[in-house]
Amino acid sequence: MGDELTFIERLRSTAPPPPRGEVWIGDDAAVLADGSLLATDAVVEGVHFDLSWCSPEDVGWKALVVNLSDIAAMGGEPRAAVVSLVVPRASRGLADRVMAGVVEAAGAFRCPLVGGDTSGGSELVVAVSVLGAVEPGAAVLRSGAREGDAVFVTGELGGAATALDELRRGGSRRGTASGQVARLLRPMPRLPEGRAAAAAGATAMVDISDGLGSDLSHVCDASGVGVRVFGDSVPLAAGSALDVALRGGDDYELCFTAPDPALVAAAFARCALSVPHCIGRIEAGARVLETAGGEGPLSRDGWRHGIA
Amino acid sequence: MGDELTFIERLRSTAPPPPRGEVWIGDDAAVLADGSLLATDAVVEGVHFDLSWCSPEDVGWKALVVNLSDIAAMGGEPRAAVVSLVVPRASRGLADRVMAGVVEAAGAFRCPLVGGDTSGGSELVVAVSVLGAVEPGAAVLRSGAREGDAVFVTGELGGAATALDELRRGGSRRGTASGQVARLLRPMPRLPEGRAAAAAGATAMVDISDGLGSDLSHVCDASGVGVRVFGDSVPLAAGSALDVALRGGDDYELCFTAPDPALVAAAFARCALSVPHCIGRIEAGARVLETAGGEGPLSRDGWRHGIA
Repeated sequence: MGDELTFIERLRSTAPPPPRGEVWIGDDAAVLADGSLLATDAVVEGVHFDLSWCSPEDVGWKALVVNLSDIAAMGGEPRAAVVSLVVPRASRGLADRVMAGVVEAAGAFRCPLVGGDTSGGSELVVAVSVLGAVEPGAAVLRSGAREGDAVFVTGELGGAATALDELRRGGSRRGTASGQVARLLRPMPRLPEGRAAAAAGATAMVDISDGLGSDLSHVCDASGVGVRVFGDSVPLAAGSALDVALRGGDDYELCFTAPDPALVAAAFARCALSVPHCIGRIEAGARVLETAGGEGPLSRDGWRHGIA
Repeated sequence: MGDELTFIERLRSTAPPPPRGEVWIGDDAAVLADGSLLATDAVVEGVHFDLSWCSPEDVGWKALVVNLSDIAAMGGEPRAAVVSLVVPRASRGLADRVMAGVVEAAGAFRCPLVGGDTSGGSELVVAVSVLGAVEPGAAVLRSGAREGDAVFVTGELGGAATALDELRRGGSRRGTASGQVARLLRPMPRLPEGRAAAAAGATAMVDISDGLGSDLSHVCDASGVGVRVFGDSVPLAAGSALDVALRGGDDYELCFTAPDPALVAAAFARCALSVPHCIGRIEAGARVLETAGGEGPLSRDGWRHGIA
């Protein structure tokens, strides 16, 4: 989100710089010298979700998963999660249902929920923080992409945005025409894929939360490079168009850069993971979208999450 | 808070039990096997504070400090903090002012702010998580108090509750009759005191966030013991009565138990810290408040934070 970026930039400028070997504000997760990773993300009712089209359990699941996705984008493993919950006073059962979703995701992705805090408030807020780990020095940052690297994504894009559009038009969380509801409500953190990418020599990685155009722009900004995206190679979720895949967010696939596609294919195959899609190449300078119809600048317009 | 306790208990019962050497939900902070500590706490506008009697910077300061206090209560050191901020859409400058308070406290207590997330919402919420550390196996839990241990508090109690009462009656954050405003708005995490207590053989420790009666009851519950509090020995902040000190919260002093008062005095003196006040003794069974006027049951009525 544009406003968030500006805020994060201001925040980074007021805090002292990190010591060598650490990365603080501005990547998917912070990296400490011993390889500890720390990520935080909150989901807010009326901004990221609306209980008219998702369940409290969905909200809890997603609140944890968006943080696990940040750990995945560093090539890390999750170790533990904590949750601060703000719940409207009149909705006592709501807290238990949200937490049931958090606990379900915690079990599914082996990231134990180790602490929590709850408070009243006027709207539901689920703020999660996750502690993760990588080998010291092995975190994959946004800043390492180099000219000539290939650009990969781990799965189909646009599904979450397509499902959101269908739900807002009156679809049911049990199913929509595109069949993409689970993408939006029950995203999967690409943890094995993140580790495989790191093992394959990934030079930069980011999770696709704000849309490929926006998130890939973060990599280009941090790395000081340009990119050429082969639009016709971008894998599209059922019902999605390229434009939706580029601008739509909330897919939580990973996008990474790596110099050797053969190594990437081998590392993913070794872990019995689908080989990621090569969708572009890091170049000097410009950010270009190339399709059969011609080429133009790659838009960095990310989306504003959920219903905002 | 009673509701929170019930919620935490339910949550603990739904999650799997922690492995040996780890402590998950229910202490001031979670403890992992390698000595990592993880705490989370959110402050919510209209529940924990009201911007009519405190500044956005105060809110940011306190949001970090209440988490540092949890780390202190384990005998630990803070390593890094992350913040999820929910800010009313119309209040753009508010986020920067809140974060200035967080950054100020982060500098004061050497706990770098390493990550953040911001989102719109209808009321201000500041959810902070802190990663800390102790030597493996050295965390001071709530559950270790033993019959015969002395009970200590690290400073005067009742000041924050007294100040809150004065502010709500129209006092100014620049000063009240009791002079206790800083207690409420700019609490100090007792980090050196927590480490000194651990070094002095503390068997159990808790921070006094909900009131001495309530927080000491948590120690008794977790340890399976009773306690005798010498009411006339409880150190009172200026303008506070014993009742306020027992029920009032938000003081963020530490309460701990230890078998050897001489060791405690020596450990604190070695660190040039004020020697803590001995206010009671761990006994079998009952929870008793003893004063010159007689004795009765120790009330466990904690307070509901701030203006709730």
